[in-house]
Amino acid sequence: MAIELKDLTKREENYSQWYNELVVKAELAEQSAVRGCMVIKPYGYAIWEKMQARLDKMFKETGVQNAYFPLLIPKSFLSREADHVKGFAKECAVVTHYRLKSADDGSGVVVDPEAKLEEELVIRPTSETIIWNTYKNWISSYRDLPLLVNQWCNVLRWEMRTRLFLRTAEFLWQEGHTAHATKEEAQQRTIQMLHVYADFAEKCMAIPVIRGVKTANERFAGALETYTIEAMMQDGKALQSGTSHFLGQNFAKAFDVKYINKDNQLEYVWATSWGVSTRLMGALIMTHSDDNGLVLPPQLAPIQVVIVPVYRKPEQLTELDNVVKPIVENLRAMGISVKYDNADNKRPGFKFADYELKGVPVRLVLGPRDVEAGTVEVMRRDTLEKTSAPLEGIETYVKNLLDEIQDNIYQKALDMRNSKMRKVDTWDEFQTEIEKGGFLLAHWDGTTETELKIKDLTKATIRCIPLDAPEEEGKCVLTGKPSHRRVIFARSY
Amino acid sequence: MAIELKDLTKREENYSQWYNELVVKAELAEQSAVRGCMVIKPYGYAIWEKMQARLDKMFKETGVQNAYFPLLIPKSFLSREADHVKGFAKECAVVTHYRLKSADDGSGVVVDPEAKLEEELVIRPTSETIIWNTYKNWISSYRDLPLLVNQWCNVLRWEMRTRLFLRTAEFLWQEGHTAHATKEEAQQRTIQMLHVYADFAEKCMAIPVIRGVKTANERFAGALETYTIEAMMQDGKALQSGTSHFLGQNFAKAFDVKYINKDNQLEYVWATSWGVSTRLMGALIMTHSDDNGLVLPPQLAPIQVVIVPVYRKPEQLTELDNVVKPIVENLRAMGISVKYDNADNKRPGFKFADYELKGVPVRLVLGPRDVEAGTVEVMRRDTLEKTSAPLEGIETYVKNLLDEIQDNIYQKALDMRNSKMRKVDTWDEFQTEIEKGGFLLAHWDGTTETELKIKDLTKATIRCIPLDAPEEEGKCVLTGKPSHRRVIFARSY
Repeated sequence: MAIELKDLTKREENYSQWYNELVVKAELAEQSAVRGCMVIKPYGYAIWEKMQARLDKMFKETGVQNAYFPLLIPKSFLSREADHVKGFAKECAVVTHYRLKSADDGSGVVVDPEAKLEEELVIRPTSETIIWNTYKNWISSYRDLPLLVNQWCNVLRWEMRTRLFLRTAEFLWQEGHTAHATKEEAQQRTIQMLHVYADFAEKCMAIPVIRGVKTANERFAGALETYTIEAMMQDGKALQSGTSHFLGQNFAKAFDVKYINKDNQLEYVWATSWGVSTRLMGALIMTHSDDNGLVLPPQLAPIQVVIVPVYRKPEQLTELDNVVKPIVENLRAMGISVKYDNADNKRPGFKFADYELKGVPVRLVLGPRDVEAGTVEVMRRDTLEKTSAPLEGIETYVKNLLDEIQDNIYQKALDMRNSKMRKVDTWDEFQTEIEKGGFLLAHWDGTTETELKIKDLTKATIRCIPLDAPEEEGKCVLTGKPSHRRVIFARSY
Repeated sequence: MAIELKDLTKREENYSQWYNELVVKAELAEQSAVRGCMVIKPYGYAIWEKMQARLDKMFKETGVQNAYFPLLIPKSFLSREADHVKGFAKECAVVTHYRLKSADDGSGVVVDPEAKLEEELVIRPTSETIIWNTYKNWISSYRDLPLLVNQWCNVLRWEMRTRLFLRTAEFLWQEGHTAHATKEEAQQRTIQMLHVYADFAEKCMAIPVIRGVKTANERFAGALETYTIEAMMQDGKALQSGTSHFLGQNFAKAFDVKYINKDNQLEYVWATSWGVSTRLMGALIMTHSDDNGLVLPPQLAPIQVVIVPVYRKPEQLTELDNVVKPIVENLRAMGISVKYDNADNKRPGFKFADYELKGVPVRLVLGPRDVEAGTVEVMRRDTLEKTSAPLEGIETYVKNLLDEIQDNIYQKALDMRNSKMRKVDTWDEFQTEIEKGGFLLAHWDGTTETELKIKDLTKATIRCIPLDAPEEEGKCVLTGKPSHRRVIFARSY
């Protein structure tokens, strides 16, 4: 492992390669035998489970219930909403048959041509269509509204270029789909869920995000408005980390979902959808980690504290075991996940490197002399600082340190982001600055034409129009036409 | 709702129809637009979530970690294990293309013939093949073993006849896949997980089960031994509720997974797999429910206690609200999920029928006179008995009652099952008794031929050879050949 760690590419040498290696070396995920589909390994999945648990709780606190809808969607459903089909038909896995049979030449199995489906089915790339087809039967009166439903599931989009967590053909996500009696209520829910995502990103993942609205060109296929949280990775690129869509009555019209309002009149229902995915794992890794490996926020670390004994003779280990045992119990009782690694087939140095690579936030090292002196060596993963702390009351010390690390890595990420976010007012400046990475706050004339031209020229896209962007008169950085507020340009994942 | 309840078919009239109606009326699940695929509705999903949470905890306590493997499996993988492909190739959904395109006639979208896959992919019917293909890279030494991994996911088997929860094309499940250095350890793990399932069924679902081993004919495709827990539904039919497979070295050989043992020699790895699915929801419903609707074990009820106020004037409701509020808080603090239904747009009678239909274990009804008298009406769903209890200390009363209901419905199900399980020694008797339903304990000569003949003649299958079946010399009920223990015959779901 020490050797493998030495092999980890440094961020400044090749950020992209550093990421790819780290995901594999830290045992988070790996490529599978199926093109573009990943295997999420136990350590990576344990982080995802913690994220799920927290998000699920936050959703339920807003009145959302979970349900489950079919994996497969009739091909014709996709076509019902004109924009939706344009956005998703090109990257669908299509099921055409329902049986295999033995090959005549005994070489294995082949598709049975007699088992052809009358209508092909696609594996859900997202579930608006099948869900709104279902909602048609669930909604008839204003009393059935709002309907606040979420599902945790897998989806599949046949992406051509894939990267672990960031862009995979199959990925895990949650998709919320709500139905409302009024436009205002649906709009409020769209924004409400955006704030849930932002709070989760900032408080739990320690990732600062900008809350904003997408331009028309960057909207979800079928939405009237798409809201986003945008994070900045250490290389200055943006990563869209969660989106919440106001769908208007598009899907209600496509699937004929009407309700009787309080005045006894039939109206189409208003809709939202919102989702985050295993892509967040990529954001988590790229925001905090360093050349020694993962840095995990304590709130999401599968192991928050590791305790490693250092000794020479077996009887010393027994003594250390006795000292550590109550500490482990106390920490667990405080809800802290702790691992005591007293395995005798690995050297301490190996263990240190491994837990650093895995991003365990706090490491305690204890030897016979420490016990004598009543102290323990404490290493915090975020700064790699070592310090000596009294054994007495170490549990409270550790608890406070975990909170401090959580705050510190958020602050560090925030400082990094703010240092790479700046105003740009001329096209020359824009072209120079975009090469340095980071977020450029610039004026834009509001047209898709200009947006696409800028993308063509610089590979930068408009990440969002921040919700808190102040009104400010200015001139479009490319065309010089009038603009009323700055938007965020960046290159992105 | 009162009308709908009246419409619920009675069990004795038509048990099968009663089940189908109940699943829909209690809002647990419904058919979707996709053949054989169900929608699990929020109330049904909330029960499944509780089952998942408990099982997941039990798995982790035995050292199992979760992970995630791809939805899609290369067609050729299925063929690697000879028995496995026979068992699963016939019911696979096959992905042949990865793109749709606009139809030339503008009628929607069609499969793009240019986007044909070189090798077709099947949607996982179970994941032994893709997982063992992955394990090949994870295992090289005895230090990597045991490997104890589980995944929660969807799977798909193209069943011809489907019923909500009991047999659906797509279903949700967990599948555990473990790898071991020795045969003995793998066999122990197989049995260990069977006992985890049995404990879960009995303690959490309140369903008594028989732990046993399947005959060769009923084994999982690719297993050397399949263990099962078998439950009896109220109509006397058996429902296989969970299986645990000892896979020997079959998949290790098919995917070339070897490890270096402590003596520095290469050996094939030993395997197990085990799973339970949303089928358990069917077992839950059919074991406990009655002609008034669902009966849920308190441990799995999304709402354990409902409180309904009965009043005439609005100011009375305010008074009742004040009395109920601290009770709700106290119950929640005790970890009991409670709903106070003071909605004024539904009559109490409607609410009563609805919560009965939904199987809420305990109902408290409170009116102004009760408050004056310091009492509350308590109704328990399992027996439908009403009683008056003091308001003072009602929380503890409710907590004890929930435990009592959990015990009572288990005991009721156990008594029912035991009353329908009997020994049968002659073929005449067998033919008569099998028509009455229930489990028949009979001698069998151990051959697949006899087993299949009995199935042909009576539709009864051997559910299992119970683990605790005593040795007993006897004669096969059909052939008269010698037998050393009785096995369980029944008709089944």
